[in-house]
Amino acid sequence: MTPAQARLAARQGPARPTSGQAPGFTQCNMITLPRDWAWDFLLFAQRNPKPCPVLDVTDPGSHRTVMAPDADLRTDIPLYRIWRDGVLTEEVTDATSHWAEHPDLVTFLIGCSFTFEGALMAAGIPVAHVDQGCNVPMFLTDRDCRPAGRMSGRLVVSMRPIPADRVAEAAMISGRTPAVHGAPVHVGLPEALGIADLQKPDFGDPVPVGPGQVPVFWACGVTPQAAVMASKPPFAITHAPGHMFVTDVPETRWQA
Amino acid sequence: MTPAQARLAARQGPARPTSGQAPGFTQCNMITLPRDWAWDFLLFAQRNPKPCPVLDVTDPGSHRTVMAPDADLRTDIPLYRIWRDGVLTEEVTDATSHWAEHPDLVTFLIGCSFTFEGALMAAGIPVAHVDQGCNVPMFLTDRDCRPAGRMSGRLVVSMRPIPADRVAEAAMISGRTPAVHGAPVHVGLPEALGIADLQKPDFGDPVPVGPGQVPVFWACGVTPQAAVMASKPPFAITHAPGHMFVTDVPETRWQA
Repeated sequence: MTPAQARLAARQGPARPTSGQAPGFTQCNMITLPRDWAWDFLLFAQRNPKPCPVLDVTDPGSHRTVMAPDADLRTDIPLYRIWRDGVLTEEVTDATSHWAEHPDLVTFLIGCSFTFEGALMAAGIPVAHVDQGCNVPMFLTDRDCRPAGRMSGRLVVSMRPIPADRVAEAAMISGRTPAVHGAPVHVGLPEALGIADLQKPDFGDPVPVGPGQVPVFWACGVTPQAAVMASKPPFAITHAPGHMFVTDVPETRWQA
Repeated sequence: MTPAQARLAARQGPARPTSGQAPGFTQCNMITLPRDWAWDFLLFAQRNPKPCPVLDVTDPGSHRTVMAPDADLRTDIPLYRIWRDGVLTEEVTDATSHWAEHPDLVTFLIGCSFTFEGALMAAGIPVAHVDQGCNVPMFLTDRDCRPAGRMSGRLVVSMRPIPADRVAEAAMISGRTPAVHGAPVHVGLPEALGIADLQKPDFGDPVPVGPGQVPVFWACGVTPQAAVMASKPPFAITHAPGHMFVTDVPETRWQA
């Protein structure tokens, strides 16, 4: 599947997670906010670069991005979430009518850990949620992000169970791509992040941690959604967790 | 010299370049702009991450940074430049009175290539301007940065002559720290960047390229000053090229 084919599938539906689609190409988290909130959010992202690596920002009112010139940000994500005053009010597969509610929406595309999963798999490190054909499990931790203006919230992490003898290599491989979350923020000990039950993720699907495997946690681009819930901007549109924007940018762009 | 000692020297003067000071600690470029221009600048930086890697942004009106909690941004840089409508009007060693002209200045601290020079020298790669005790040569290229709102300008690069058999290693070593300009943007062929004479830098001091050496060009944090000249915000304060803000943050923070 090429990036354009993945976006066409997203436009036509049905909605499904994009992990494993268009191998070799960068996938992004998305959040769009009224211009009045854009400064606070961009500053929040700058202050929290591990969960919020900003890869592109549109001009106000635009639904185009240099990362995929023929794409329409209003339709080319499989599933959107509509937020009003910090409350999730709807999930839709086409956000065109919601986008039209505000003339000056500024859209942020944020790096996604799916981008380094190809490199993990190429090294023979299993990625359980890809093997199982489900969404990656994500957890709201008890770690506060550094606030910016009206924007605050807690860190969200994604979890991948990694064989104990491959954890160091997984850290090094993902660490080579800091623009897409980079190295893990935490290895083992979910309770130290305030995670009570690894089988009850806050977003995505549960994935078992098998014998000889260690849960490894990466900063997650769903963190902006947690910030929306906590900060209550009047309006926001985001992707639904795991349902990413597939771009035309090769993953290799982000290798340090 | 510790970071605090380097900042004390900057406060007390005389002004001199900070390359080689406080080994092991991060140095930063600085630009402060009225709040009205802060969004355009932060977006410009996001769209041009090689020359403008933003490491911290202050709240409006603050002269404090998390990167050096006891520092005062108005006094702790050896030499400041005051800009009015894009024109350099003064160089001062204490910017307190100029800072007071605007109540809502937002300050950006931007990564500096001095941060990876220690790693180059540790690997036995000579850094000519350090050996010669002068400022690094910097050049305004003919490459346009990607504009953002009212902010535009051309790329500025720093140049280090590197022995031809160490160029690849210098690229790899600096490439490991993308938050402080990362790998070179260009190796050899100054004319391809619109540089007519390597011995006439636009900023800093000339450094000869010896036999067996190749000029290597890194994106430079003076690029915001070129953008100020081109974009003409009503008011700005920057560091003077080569006279950086020395922080308490270890260089190792930026290793990918």
